[in-house]
Amino acid sequence: MYTVGIDIGGMSIKSGIVDDNGKIIVQSRIKTEGTPEQIISNMVKQIKDLLSEMKLKVKDIRGIGIGCPGAVSSEIGVVEFLPNLGWEGIPLADILKKDFDTDIKLSNDANVAALAEVIYGSAKNYDSCVMFTLGTGVGGGIVIDKKLYEGGHSRGAELGHMTLFLDGEACSCGRRGCIECYTSATALIKQTKEAMLQDKNSIMWDFVQGEISNVDGRTAFECAKKGDETAIKVKDNYIYYLGESILNMLNIFRPDAFVIGGGISAQGENLTKPLKEYCEKFNYGYRYAPKTDIIVATLGNDAGIIGAAALLRQ
Amino acid sequence: MYTVGIDIGGMSIKSGIVDDNGKIIVQSRIKTEGTPEQIISNMVKQIKDLLSEMKLKVKDIRGIGIGCPGAVSSEIGVVEFLPNLGWEGIPLADILKKDFDTDIKLSNDANVAALAEVIYGSAKNYDSCVMFTLGTGVGGGIVIDKKLYEGGHSRGAELGHMTLFLDGEACSCGRRGCIECYTSATALIKQTKEAMLQDKNSIMWDFVQGEISNVDGRTAFECAKKGDETAIKVKDNYIYYLGESILNMLNIFRPDAFVIGGGISAQGENLTKPLKEYCEKFNYGYRYAPKTDIIVATLGNDAGIIGAAALLRQ
Repeated sequence: MYTVGIDIGGMSIKSGIVDDNGKIIVQSRIKTEGTPEQIISNMVKQIKDLLSEMKLKVKDIRGIGIGCPGAVSSEIGVVEFLPNLGWEGIPLADILKKDFDTDIKLSNDANVAALAEVIYGSAKNYDSCVMFTLGTGVGGGIVIDKKLYEGGHSRGAELGHMTLFLDGEACSCGRRGCIECYTSATALIKQTKEAMLQDKNSIMWDFVQGEISNVDGRTAFECAKKGDETAIKVKDNYIYYLGESILNMLNIFRPDAFVIGGGISAQGENLTKPLKEYCEKFNYGYRYAPKTDIIVATLGNDAGIIGAAALLRQ
Repeated sequence: MYTVGIDIGGMSIKSGIVDDNGKIIVQSRIKTEGTPEQIISNMVKQIKDLLSEMKLKVKDIRGIGIGCPGAVSSEIGVVEFLPNLGWEGIPLADILKKDFDTDIKLSNDANVAALAEVIYGSAKNYDSCVMFTLGTGVGGGIVIDKKLYEGGHSRGAELGHMTLFLDGEACSCGRRGCIECYTSATALIKQTKEAMLQDKNSIMWDFVQGEISNVDGRTAFECAKKGDETAIKVKDNYIYYLGESILNMLNIFRPDAFVIGGGISAQGENLTKPLKEYCEKFNYGYRYAPKTDIIVATLGNDAGIIGAAALLRQ
C-alpha cells in the first residue's frame, strides 16, 4: 500500500508517495511562498498531482503524514508555531481533511526523522532509539517500541534544549549552555573557526583554501584524519560534548540504538567509534548498564518524506 | 483489596499491607543484616506475619510490590545490583514466588516514589509526572499515563545523572557535573557550608548554634526567610540549579506535574513558587509551551511501601 509523506521546510515543501518498504516512488517540491492559505492550497494541488501521476485515489492510500519544522500538537493535528514560516495555530489536519478523506498525521520534523530510521533506516532492526539531528540546531526524536514518544501534548522531545553547560553559551531558546550550543553543526563550525584563528599553521587553512568562511562540519574531522593537531583537538572536544549529551539520553531511555543524523553523520565510524568508546566508559551502572548501539542515520534528505509517511505505520 | 508493599533500604526493610486507597493498614520493619539468603528469608517471614496479622491468605491479596535502592530489571524480576547491600543478580521475584503464589513486581525506589505520588499522592489528579527525590543523591522517576516509564531493560530514568555543568564537580557515577552534584540535599548542605565559611556574620551560624556540622537542608531556606543575605544567595543559587534541571525534564517529557520529594520538599511553596516562576520564564516554546505544575511530594517516608504496592495498580 502507498502513503503520502510531506516534509515541510523553511524554503520548500517536499512531498512524495512512499511504498510499504519505505521507498519513495514519486516526489515533487514546491516553494513555501505566500500566506499559510496559499501555501496549503499549493500543497493540496501538489498531493493531488502526485496521486494522479500514480493513478491513485484517496481511498487507495494509507493516509497522509506531515513533518513540520516547529511545534506541532499532533494529537489534534494542529501546527502550533513554525517560526521560519510564521505559521501559528493552523489546524492543518482538519484543513486537509476537506480534500482528502483519509488518516492525516502530523509531527515535528526531528521526531519524524527518528521514526524513519527505526521503521525503515539504520535502526530498523531495533525497537527503540533516540536520535539527534545535528544541523543548524539540534533536533531530538524518541522512538519507544517502534512508536514515537513526543512527550505530553506531543510537545516534548526537545532534546537539543537540555543544559549541558550551566551558564554557558547563549542559546536561541532563551537559556544558556544548551546541548545545541555545543553539538550542532553550527557549533562545530564555530569551534573549528576559533581554533583556526589560534593556529595559523593548521592544515585546516589549506583545506578551506585560506578562506575561513569555507569552514564546514567536515573541516576538523577531515584534517584530524591527516594528523593536524589543532583539528584533532577540535574533533576530540566535539566528541566529548556529543558523548556527554548522548550519555544523558542513555541514562534516561536506555534505547536499543542512538542515531546521529544531519551532515556530520557522513563521518560514519570516524564519529561513532570514539562516541561508543566514550559512552561505554561512562555509562551509568558500569558493567551492569545495558548496551546501546551508536549509529549514523542512513536515510539522509529523504528521511523527511519517508518519516512523515511512517507516521501512518506506527 | 489489599496489596503487600516492601521498601528495601540500606539499613532496614519496611513492609506493609496497603489498601486500595493507598492507606497502610499494618506495617513492620526488619534490619538488613546477613547474606542475601538470610535477609530474604527474614523478609518472607515478615510478609507472612503481616498477612497473618490481617488474617489474609495469599489468594486474598493483589500481589507483592517491592522497591529497591539500586538497579533492577523489573521485566524479569531480578535485582541486578544494590550497592548498599552488596546484592548482585538476585532473582527476587522467582525466590518469593516459592512462598507466595501471586503477582510479584519490582522496581527502583525512586521510580516507586514517583508512582506513589501519581496513584495516591500529590499528583493523583494528574496522569503523568516526573519526580526528583532530593536526598543523599538525586533519584528520578517518570510516570506516563499513570504507568511507570523505566527506560529500556527497565534500567533508565537515572535523572540525577544528567550533566548540568560540563566538567563540573566529580560525581559518584564516574562523570562530572551531574544534576546530583548540584541539587541533592548533600549538595545543598555543601553549598550552605561553603557560603557560611565565607561569611562569619551570617545568621546561619546562630541557626546551627555555631556548629557547622549541624547544617542541614533547612539551614539556608530558613535563614533566607529571616532576610540573611548569604542564605538568600545560597537559596537562589540552589533554585537556579534545580530550575535548570527541572526545565531539562520539562523539555523532554512535558509532564502534567513535576514532583519534588526528599527532605527539602518540606519547604513547600517556599521551594515551588520560585521554581514555577523560573520554569515559566524559560520553558522551551515561550507562550506556546504547555504548562507543568510544580509540586512537592506528600507521602513522605510512606512513599516506599505505598509506591511498591502501587506497582500492582498500574
